[in-house]
Amino acid sequence: MRIIVVGAFGDIGRAACKELEQRHEIVTVGRSSGDFQVDVGDLNAVKSLYDKVGTVDAVVSCAGDATFAPLSDMDQEKFMVGLRQKVMGQVNLVLAGLDVVSDGGSFTLTSGVLDRDPIRMGSNAATANGALAGFVKGAAIEMPRGLRVNVVSPGMLDVSAARYGAWFHGHKPVASHDVGLAYAKCVEGALTGQVVIVE
Amino acid sequence: MRIIVVGAFGDIGRAACKELEQRHEIVTVGRSSGDFQVDVGDLNAVKSLYDKVGTVDAVVSCAGDATFAPLSDMDQEKFMVGLRQKVMGQVNLVLAGLDVVSDGGSFTLTSGVLDRDPIRMGSNAATANGALAGFVKGAAIEMPRGLRVNVVSPGMLDVSAARYGAWFHGHKPVASHDVGLAYAKCVEGALTGQVVIVE
Ligand SMILES: NC(=O)c1ccc[n+]([C@@H]2O[C@H](COP(=O)([O-])OP(=O)(O)OC[C@H]3O[C@@H](n4cnc5c(N)ncnc54)[C@H](OP(=O)(O)O)[C@@H]3O)[C@@H](O)[C@H]2O)c1
Ligand SMILES: NC(=O)c1ccc[n+]([C@@H]2O[C@H](COP(=O)([O-])OP(=O)(O)OC[C@H]3O[C@@H](n4cnc5c(N)ncnc54)[C@H](OP(=O)(O)O)[C@@H]3O)[C@@H](O)[C@H]2O)c1
Repeated sequence: MRIIVVGAFGDIGRAACKELEQRHEIVTVGRSSGDFQVDVGDLNAVKSLYDKVGTVDAVVSCAGDATFAPLSDMDQEKFMVGLRQKVMGQVNLVLAGLDVVSDGGSFTLTSGVLDRDPIRMGSNAATANGALAGFVKGAAIEMPRGLRVNVVSPGMLDVSAARYGAWFHGHKPVASHDVGLAYAKCVEGALTGQVVIVE
Repeated sequence: MRIIVVGAFGDIGRAACKELEQRHEIVTVGRSSGDFQVDVGDLNAVKSLYDKVGTVDAVVSCAGDATFAPLSDMDQEKFMVGLRQKVMGQVNLVLAGLDVVSDGGSFTLTSGVLDRDPIRMGSNAATANGALAGFVKGAAIEMPRGLRVNVVSPGMLDVSAARYGAWFHGHKPVASHDVGLAYAKCVEGALTGQVVIVE
């Protein structure tokens, strides 16, 4: 398959690529890195990304900012970051891809553990993660041409412990290899409308 | 208790008020109806609502638009309605209320069935519903002064069948009385961080 991986050079993106590149052609995308650049938060930019990339069989999204801040410091602007970027950004990849991805192809998005196992400062990410779970459940039953849509929800990755570990004391880091497998299961399997938890 | 009910004259709001007004003083709020008017999508407007209303012990939100449209007709603008109104609007009531609601008080938001039992045209609402589930889970652990936050997730109400029934064939309508009870359980009980399903 020819697979777009958005956020391919992030911690999660590398884990997904390491597994998928063994069997597939990967087109890497990032905000500033990769074969192509895009801001997924802008639907028109995502449309022109698809125009440039051409035929694809699967889209994997490992991108999406959210605001980490105490609830008492949140304001509308900070909170909208997660809704615009992590939710709308990933949804844009699906909306713009409905006519583009090959018959029977798939979209695999990324959420995370915080809507089932919350941490301080995590309310915006928890909201975005829950939103993505709702989206794949709702969108899966309306996908045309046998397309599928799922979301991978990993705990904190082993490779990310140095960056995020201080917020996640007591959380058991997740093996990047296992995270890669979850993306392969979504892309190469037949699941749709699922939250694939990696713990 | 003195309780703000936002969306008090909607189908859900009436169900909540009918139960709560038996034991509490209700301050009704709507976009154009009620004792006070606000657009919850604007955090500053919500702040000035709280200034005007004064002391409150609980906030109940039964408001929040989302776009109902086929997935293939969604665009960024339509999809953002649910994120800005149903998600951010209800979150604004919490953010602006953190310093306002009495010690031990509560916020009770409203989502709906579509993130667990989806329908065609429901992807935006499903996303918003999931987001609210994630939000209450994430925010509950950061609430100050013993404040609590929950979300009520009802199926289609009996009284709403005439409006929405054509989209919900096969869904068993939920008794408005039972929906009212769910709001009472959230306001008068001790739950926090929960999705209270009414089916
Ligand atoms: N790392 C973890 O332990 C973990 C666990 C669970 C969930 N998550 C979630 O998974 C997602 C990715 O996490 P990560 O740790 O892998 O992040 P990361 O290392 O910071 O990488 C993010 C990647 O996404 C790209 N990107 C960011 N915003 C973009 C945009 N608007 N448009 C296009 N590309 C964009 C970045 O591109 P550039 O490099 O070009 O800027 C980068 O390649 C986040 O939502 C995070 O919350 C992470
Ligand atoms: N009815 C159902 O069967 C059902 C089932 C599950 C979930 N839900 C969800 O519950 C929520 C309410 O549904 P409903 O059927 O009760 O709606 P509704 O009958 O249309 O009533 C909505 C109420 O919210 C107020 N409102 C709307 N937007 C507002 C805003 N931005 N700021 C302040 N107030 C606002 C309206 O005020 P005005 O009257 O002044 O305009 C009205 O009182 C929706 O999110 C819906 O998806 C409904």
